[in-house]
Amino acid sequence: MKAIEKIEKQFQKLSSYSHLAAICGWDQATMMPDGGNDARSKAMSDLAVLCHETLTDSRMGEWITTAESDTSLTNEQRTNLREIKRAWTQATQLPSELVEKKSLLGSKCEHEWRSQRGKNDWPRFAENLKKVVEASREEANTRATQTGVRPYDAMLDLYEPGMTTEKLDILFGDLKSWLPNLIQKVLEKQKSTVITEPKGPFDTDKQAALGKQMMEILGFNFNHGRLDVSVHPFCGGVPSDVRITTRYDEQDFTSAIMGVVHETGHARYEQGLPKSYAGFPAGEARSMGIHESQSLFFEMQLGRHPFFVDHLATLSAEAFDKQDDAAFGRENINALYQRVRPGYIRVDADEVTYPAHVILRFEIERDLIEGKIEVDDIPALWNQKMQEYLGLSTDGEYTNGCMQDIHWTDGSFGYFPSYTLGAMYAAQFMHAMRKTVDVDACIKALDFTPINSWLEENIWSKGSTLSTDELVIQATGEPLNPEYFKQHLIARYLID
Amino acid sequence: MKAIEKIEKQFQKLSSYSHLAAICGWDQATMMPDGGNDARSKAMSDLAVLCHETLTDSRMGEWITTAESDTSLTNEQRTNLREIKRAWTQATQLPSELVEKKSLLGSKCEHEWRSQRGKNDWPRFAENLKKVVEASREEANTRATQTGVRPYDAMLDLYEPGMTTEKLDILFGDLKSWLPNLIQKVLEKQKSTVITEPKGPFDTDKQAALGKQMMEILGFNFNHGRLDVSVHPFCGGVPSDVRITTRYDEQDFTSAIMGVVHETGHARYEQGLPKSYAGFPAGEARSMGIHESQSLFFEMQLGRHPFFVDHLATLSAEAFDKQDDAAFGRENINALYQRVRPGYIRVDADEVTYPAHVILRFEIERDLIEGKIEVDDIPALWNQKMQEYLGLSTDGEYTNGCMQDIHWTDGSFGYFPSYTLGAMYAAQFMHAMRKTVDVDACIKALDFTPINSWLEENIWSKGSTLSTDELVIQATGEPLNPEYFKQHLIARYLID
Repeated sequence: MKAIEKIEKQFQKLSSYSHLAAICGWDQATMMPDGGNDARSKAMSDLAVLCHETLTDSRMGEWITTAESDTSLTNEQRTNLREIKRAWTQATQLPSELVEKKSLLGSKCEHEWRSQRGKNDWPRFAENLKKVVEASREEANTRATQTGVRPYDAMLDLYEPGMTTEKLDILFGDLKSWLPNLIQKVLEKQKSTVITEPKGPFDTDKQAALGKQMMEILGFNFNHGRLDVSVHPFCGGVPSDVRITTRYDEQDFTSAIMGVVHETGHARYEQGLPKSYAGFPAGEARSMGIHESQSLFFEMQLGRHPFFVDHLATLSAEAFDKQDDAAFGRENINALYQRVRPGYIRVDADEVTYPAHVILRFEIERDLIEGKIEVDDIPALWNQKMQEYLGLSTDGEYTNGCMQDIHWTDGSFGYFPSYTLGAMYAAQFMHAMRKTVDVDACIKALDFTPINSWLEENIWSKGSTLSTDELVIQATGEPLNPEYFKQHLIARYLID
Repeated sequence: MKAIEKIEKQFQKLSSYSHLAAICGWDQATMMPDGGNDARSKAMSDLAVLCHETLTDSRMGEWITTAESDTSLTNEQRTNLREIKRAWTQATQLPSELVEKKSLLGSKCEHEWRSQRGKNDWPRFAENLKKVVEASREEANTRATQTGVRPYDAMLDLYEPGMTTEKLDILFGDLKSWLPNLIQKVLEKQKSTVITEPKGPFDTDKQAALGKQMMEILGFNFNHGRLDVSVHPFCGGVPSDVRITTRYDEQDFTSAIMGVVHETGHARYEQGLPKSYAGFPAGEARSMGIHESQSLFFEMQLGRHPFFVDHLATLSAEAFDKQDDAAFGRENINALYQRVRPGYIRVDADEVTYPAHVILRFEIERDLIEGKIEVDDIPALWNQKMQEYLGLSTDGEYTNGCMQDIHWTDGSFGYFPSYTLGAMYAAQFMHAMRKTVDVDACIKALDFTPINSWLEENIWSKGSTLSTDELVIQATGEPLNPEYFKQHLIARYLID
C-alpha cells in the first residue's frame, strides 16, 4: 500500500470515530437523562483519547514525508495531504503531559466557575484562571517555537489558519476607530423608536414548527439533519447528518427563531461541504471565522434584512394566531430585530455592539498570552475598555464582566476574534454576491436558491481546499476588507 | 501493572466504545434522518472492528493466563476474570476471515430478503440462505471443535451459556407433548367470547403519555433512560441510560402499550445490573433467555395479569377520554389481552401459541446446523410442523412462512430457543416470588416495589456473576422446570 493510501485509511477511521463522538455529544446535550452523564463523559473521554492516538499514530510522520515526495499524487491527494499534515502537526506539537495538564486545569476551572460566577467570586476564579493561563502560555510558546511565529499567532492558527496578530491589530484597530462613535449615533437615532414587545406565552411546539418553516425556506436539507432543543444552542453532528439546536422561551419567540436562522447558516455550510473530500480535513470547514461568516450571513445579512423580517412578522403572526395583534406588525418586528442596546453580556449583544465585546477580549487575551499583562490586571482593563467602547462600567462586577463566559476557562485563547472576522466576511460576501444576484428581490420572493447557489459554489463546496485568503479572494475579488462591514452597519442602522 | 489490571483497563476501554456504539445504534433507529445512513453505517462498522480488536488484543491471552494463576485476586476479580475469559474465548474462536465472510453473506442475504419476502421468492432467497447456512455450519463446527461439544451447542452457548441441545430436546419435547392439545382447549373455551375492538383513532402523543405512565408505575427510572419511537421496538442504550422504543398504531393503542410494558422489563433488568461490575462482562445480563424472562415477566406475568389489565382499562379510558365507551370495560380489555389465535407470524403470536413457533424454529435450525437437513427441506418441514402444532398450512406460502423473520438471514442460529426459555423462567420466577410476596395484592394496589425488589435482589443485581443454573436455583430453589409455565397457561387460559 502506498503511503498516501495508508494515511487515507487512517483518516477514514478517524472520521468514523469523530462521527460517533459528534452524535454522542449531540445526544448528551439534547436527549440524555442526567443519570447517564458519568458513564457518557467517561466514554466520550476514552473516544477523544482514541481519536488523538489515531491522528498522532507513530507511523504518520514517515507516511506524510513519503507521500510528500510521491510524484504520482493527484491534485486532490496533494490538497488532502496538505490539510492532513496541518491537522497532524497541530496534534503532535504538544507533549501529551501538557495536553493532559491543560485539560485537567481547564475542567477544574470550568467546573468551579459554574458556581463562582453566581457568587461574583473573582478571587477564587482568578486562582484557577492563573493556572489555565500559565498552561496556555506554555502551549502558545511551545507551538510558536516550532513554527517560528509569535505566541498568540500560534493560538490563532488553531482557529484561523493564516490569521496573525499583526493583521488583527490593523483590522480591529480600524474598527475601534469608528465603532464607538457609530454606536452613539445609532442610539441617538433609535431613541424615539417605540417598540411593543409581543406578549406571550408562545407555545414551544408552535415555536419549533415556525423554526422548521424558516429552515425549510432557507434550504436546510431535512434528509441530512434535524432541529432539537438544548440549553446552549449549537450546530453539531456530521455533514451527512447535521444536528442544530435552539432553546425556547415561552415569553419570547423572537430569540429562538433568530437562533434557528443563525444555526441554519452553520448547518447549510456543513451540508454543502465537498462530498469528494468527505471524512478528510480538506473536506471540513475552512476556519471558525468562515463558519461564523455563514451563520452571520444567515442571521444578519439575510435573517434581519427588512424584507425577511417582513415575512417573519407575517409567518409568526400566523403561527401564533396573532394576525390582529399590532405587536406583530412588520414595522414593529423590524424595529425589534434592529434594536441596538449596549449591554454587559456578549452573547446577548446586537450586531452593532457585538464587535466591541470581541475587540475587548482580543486585546486582553493577546497581551495575557504574551505575558504583557497578568490575570490580576483583567478586571481593571475590562472596566476601562467597556467604558471606552460601550460607555458601561463593570467596576466590582465580575459575574457580568470578565466571568461571563466559558472561553477562557478551558484555555481557548485565540478563538474570540473569529466572531467578528465572521461578521466582516459575511458583509464582504454579501457585497460580492450582489454583483450577480438580486438579493433584495430574492429575499422579497423568499426564493433563496440563487443565494444558496452562490454560497455553495463560492464557499461551502470549497471546504478547506483553499486557504482562507484564497477563498475570500476567489469569492469576492479581494482579501478581507473591513470596509464592507462598516458600510453594512451604516446602511442598515443609520440610513433610512 | 498486574495482569488483571491490564485486563480491566482494556475492558474499560471496550465498555466505553460499546457505550458509544449502543447510543449511536439507538440514534440510527430513532433519530437519524435517512440521508445520514451511509456515513453512519460506515462509522458503526469501523467501531465494531475496533471493539473486536480491543477484545482480541494479542496480549489478552497471556494476561488472562497470568491473572488466572494470581492468588491475590479478590473473589470479585475472579468472577470478572471468568466472564472476561468467556467473552474473549468466544471472540477469538473464529478466524477473522470467517467472521468477515459470514458478515458479508449475512448482509447480502438480509438486504435481498427485504424485497424477496414481499415477492414470496423462496428460490432466490434460498440461494443466499444456503451460503449463510454453509458459513454458520463452519462457525458451529469451528467453535465446537475447540470446546468439544456438538455444533448446535456451540451456537447455543453464544446466547444461552450452559444450555445444550440435549436439555432443549427434553424441555421442548415436554412442551410439544401437551401444547397443541392445550391450544385447542383454549380455542374451544374462547369460541363464544365476544370482543369489541376499541375504535380509534388514538392520538399517538396520548399513547406515548400512557406508555410513560405505565413505565412510571412499573418503576422505570427516567433519570437513567427514555422512551422513543422506532419501526421495530427494542431496548438499547447502556445500564446508566437505557433507551426503549415502541411504535404507535393510530387505530390500536393496545399493542404499543403492551410493547412498552415488555420493553420496560428488559429496561428494569439493565437498570438493576450490579454497579460494582459496571462496564465488565460480569456486570452484564446473564443470557438472552434471562433477559427475555424479565420482559416476559413484565408483559405476561404482570402486564396481562387480570388485575393489571383492570387498571390499564381504566387508565386508557382516561387517557383517551373514553370513560363511557363499553369497549374500554375491564372485561372486554381483559378478553382482548387474553385472546388466543393461532397464526402464521411469530411476532404477532399470543403467549399460548408463541412456543409452537419457537419449537418449530428450534427443530429446524438444530438439524440444519448439524447437517441433518438442507435449506431445500425447510418449506416442507415448516408446513408439516405448522400443521402439527397450530393446525395451519403454509404450503407454497413463504412470505408468512419460512421467510417471515430476519434471524436466519444473518446466521443467528441458536437464538430462537431464548424466547421460550424466557417464558419458562418468567413463570418459574413468579411461582417462587409468590412464596414471599403477595403478588396479586401488589398488582391490585399498583404497588410494584415488593415485586421489583424481589427481581432486583434475585435476578438483576446478579448480572453474570452466577451461571444461569446457579441463578435460577438461588432464586427459585430448583433448576429450570417447565411445569410452572404449563401451570401458568392452564391457570390463566383454562381455569375461570
